[in-house]
Amino acid sequence: MNKQLKKTLKDIEKEIHITPFLRALLLTDGSITTLLEAFKSCEIKITGLKQKIVEADEKLSEELNINPGEMINEREVILSAEQKPLVYAKSYAVILRLDICAKNDILKTNAPIGKILKKHKVETHREIQEIGIKSDAEIAKILNLNNNKILFRIYLIIHKNMPLMKIEEYFGEIKI
Amino acid sequence: MNKQLKKTLKDIEKEIHITPFLRALLLTDGSITTLLEAFKSCEIKITGLKQKIVEADEKLSEELNINPGEMINEREVILSAEQKPLVYAKSYAVILRLDICAKNDILKTNAPIGKILKKHKVETHREIQEIGIKSDAEIAKILNLNNNKILFRIYLIIHKNMPLMKIEEYFGEIKI
Repeated sequence: MNKQLKKTLKDIEKEIHITPFLRALLLTDGSITTLLEAFKSCEIKITGLKQKIVEADEKLSEELNINPGEMINEREVILSAEQKPLVYAKSYAVILRLDICAKNDILKTNAPIGKILKKHKVETHREIQEIGIKSDAEIAKILNLNNNKILFRIYLIIHKNMPLMKIEEYFGEIKI
Repeated sequence: MNKQLKKTLKDIEKEIHITPFLRALLLTDGSITTLLEAFKSCEIKITGLKQKIVEADEKLSEELNINPGEMINEREVILSAEQKPLVYAKSYAVILRLDICAKNDILKTNAPIGKILKKHKVETHREIQEIGIKSDAEIAKILNLNNNKILFRIYLIIHKNMPLMKIEEYFGEIKI
């Protein structure tokens, strides 16, 4: 964990209580779905909320190192277990950089990104860009949270030295 | 999680109790050191036990897809927190396939493999080969275990479509 991340985590922990499970989900460089499966010892259900192809705006094109206007696949899913929402995830994938098989799975299924990359043996490196607390009534509602302090992280999935995806994950209450 | 892995995990859980934390360490495709740091909320100390360059025997050369006799870096480390050993890890790295910078870190430092790969932004894919319980008095002693049923996993780190390393991890008692 780099120093900046460590400091931010300390600041977050002054404001809200983070269980060891949440801390692991926040910091891991592995698949969130696999971790949730391990924690809950049950299958994690993925529900697709939205899926659309959009042109990258200036901010996104900078983050993903592409030209503004390039095509991005935007996906929103909920990861849940036993009918309880655990994580709300939003991903932005650079369509041109996706291998054909992985592209089909990402465009046409609700399968979680980590599982798709694993299935197609895509070699990646993950870089956490930001962790923090966000107030967002809509996401709080999706995650069945009473309070409006939502723990989140944003990270890039790097492939062939270029950003393949940006992923935002918002964490609900995760009881083990 | 594939079906075979799921079945093996069920069999293991009939024999020993696995906490959600241990299950996560056993199944994750991310860095074990990062997960332990998150769980324990403290720094994980790495102690090197052995480090030597050996020629690959037949079994290892088959697993790593190299010629018998090719040079392998063998490393043994203990991951611990607050003076308690948590994980004993043994790695076999194909020296020829290591990038120069990562090679220096792997040959000359005790830094954990996951951290080294992350530092050098090496893009990888991890494949669990085996999970199980092993009886080994020596490893039990290293891990301060009273019983001799040691939970372990073996996985490959794949880079440029070839095995870069084989890693064996043996888990001690991990109290959170």
